[in-house]
Amino acid sequence: MPHIPIREGLPGIRGLFAFRPQTAKPLSELAEVLLHEPGTLSPAERELIATYVSSRNDCHYCQTAHGAIAAHHLGGNEETVIEVKRDFEHAAISDKLKALLAIAGKVQRDGKSVQPEYVERARREGATDLEIHDTLLIAAAFCMYNRYVDGLATWTPTDLAGFRERAAKVARDDYLGVLGYIEAAQVGHNG
Amino acid sequence: MPHIPIREGLPGIRGLFAFRPQTAKPLSELAEVLLHEPGTLSPAERELIATYVSSRNDCHYCQTAHGAIAAHHLGGNEETVIEVKRDFEHAAISDKLKALLAIAGKVQRDGKSVQPEYVERARREGATDLEIHDTLLIAAAFCMYNRYVDGLATWTPTDLAGFRERAAKVARDDYLGVLGYIEAAQVGHNG
Repeated sequence: MPHIPIREGLPGIRGLFAFRPQTAKPLSELAEVLLHEPGTLSPAERELIATYVSSRNDCHYCQTAHGAIAAHHLGGNEETVIEVKRDFEHAAISDKLKALLAIAGKVQRDGKSVQPEYVERARREGATDLEIHDTLLIAAAFCMYNRYVDGLATWTPTDLAGFRERAAKVARDDYLGVLGYIEAAQVGHNG
Repeated sequence: MPHIPIREGLPGIRGLFAFRPQTAKPLSELAEVLLHEPGTLSPAERELIATYVSSRNDCHYCQTAHGAIAAHHLGGNEETVIEVKRDFEHAAISDKLKALLAIAGKVQRDGKSVQPEYVERARREGATDLEIHDTLLIAAAFCMYNRYVDGLATWTPTDLAGFRERAAKVARDDYLGVLGYIEAAQVGHNG
C-alpha cells in the first residue's frame, strides 16, 4: 500500500504526478528532454540506459515501463531489453552504447566511481561530450525517479499488455501528456 | 578535471547548467518548488534535508552549497548544519524534522528501505502527507543532483566565503536566477 493517499488506478510515478502536479511538471519536462526530444542518441538507446539503471536499482515499475518503451522503439524487440539488463557487454547493441551503459552503471552506484577511463572508453567508441553528459544525467535522474516510485511504495501493475500499450503511446506522443490529467486530478483531489 | 568541457569559473552544477541549458531549466524548477516556494516545511528544514542527503552521498559541492543556504535561513547558525550532518537525532532541531531526516536517510540508500514505521513516526510527530512526499522527493532529487555533480567531476571552490555570499543571494531570490546566465553561456559556448 502506498505511504500517502494516491488516486486509485494510477500506477508508479503517475499516481505521484497526480498527487503533486507542481513537481510533476519539471519531472516530466526533464524526462522529455532526456528521453524523447530529438538527439544524436536514439530514443531506443536512451530508454535502454534508463531501463538498465532502473533494473540495477531494482525498481520494478520503472524498468518495466521504460523497458517496454525501449522495446517499442526497437520494433517490438523485447529480447534486447532483457539482454541489456542481464549482461549488456554481450547484448546485441553497439560498442558505443556498451561504453555508455558502463558509465551509467557507475553512476547508479555513486557519482565518484565514474573514473576517467570509463569516459575515455566512451570517447574511443565515438561518444560526444553531449552524449556522455546526457548518459550521466539519465542515469542520475533514474536514481531519483526509482527512489521516488519505490520510496512511496507505489503500485505496479502485473499486466504486461498494459505497459506495451502505454509504451506505444509515450513513444508516439511525448512525456508531457501526463500534465493534462494531472490538472484534472488536482481539481478532484487537492482542489 | 571535469569529464566534459565546462566553462571556467562556474563550479559544481552551475557549470553543467551552462553546458546544457535544456536540462538546466527543469532541474532548476524542481529545486525551486522543492526548496524555495512557500510551503509548510520552512526553507531551512528543506535545505537541511538536502544537505543531509548530499552529505550521505559524500557530495562536497552540494553539501557545502545547501549547508550554507540552510545556515543563512537559520540566521547564520552553521553549528546546527554540522550537527545535522554528524548525528541529526541529537541535533537542535524539532522531533518532526528528525523523523523526516530518518526517511531521507533511507531514501539515500534505496527507495524500498522506507519501511512503514518510518512514515508512521513522521506522522506521529505531526508531518502531513505533503511533507512526507516532499521530504522523499527532496532526498531522491539530491541522489540525482549529487551524482550529476560528482559523476562529471565538476569543480568545487574551497573558499567558504563565496558559498556564504551565494547562499544569501539564493535565499533572497530563488533557484531560477541561474537561467539568465545560462542563455548568455549558451550563446558563447554551444550557439
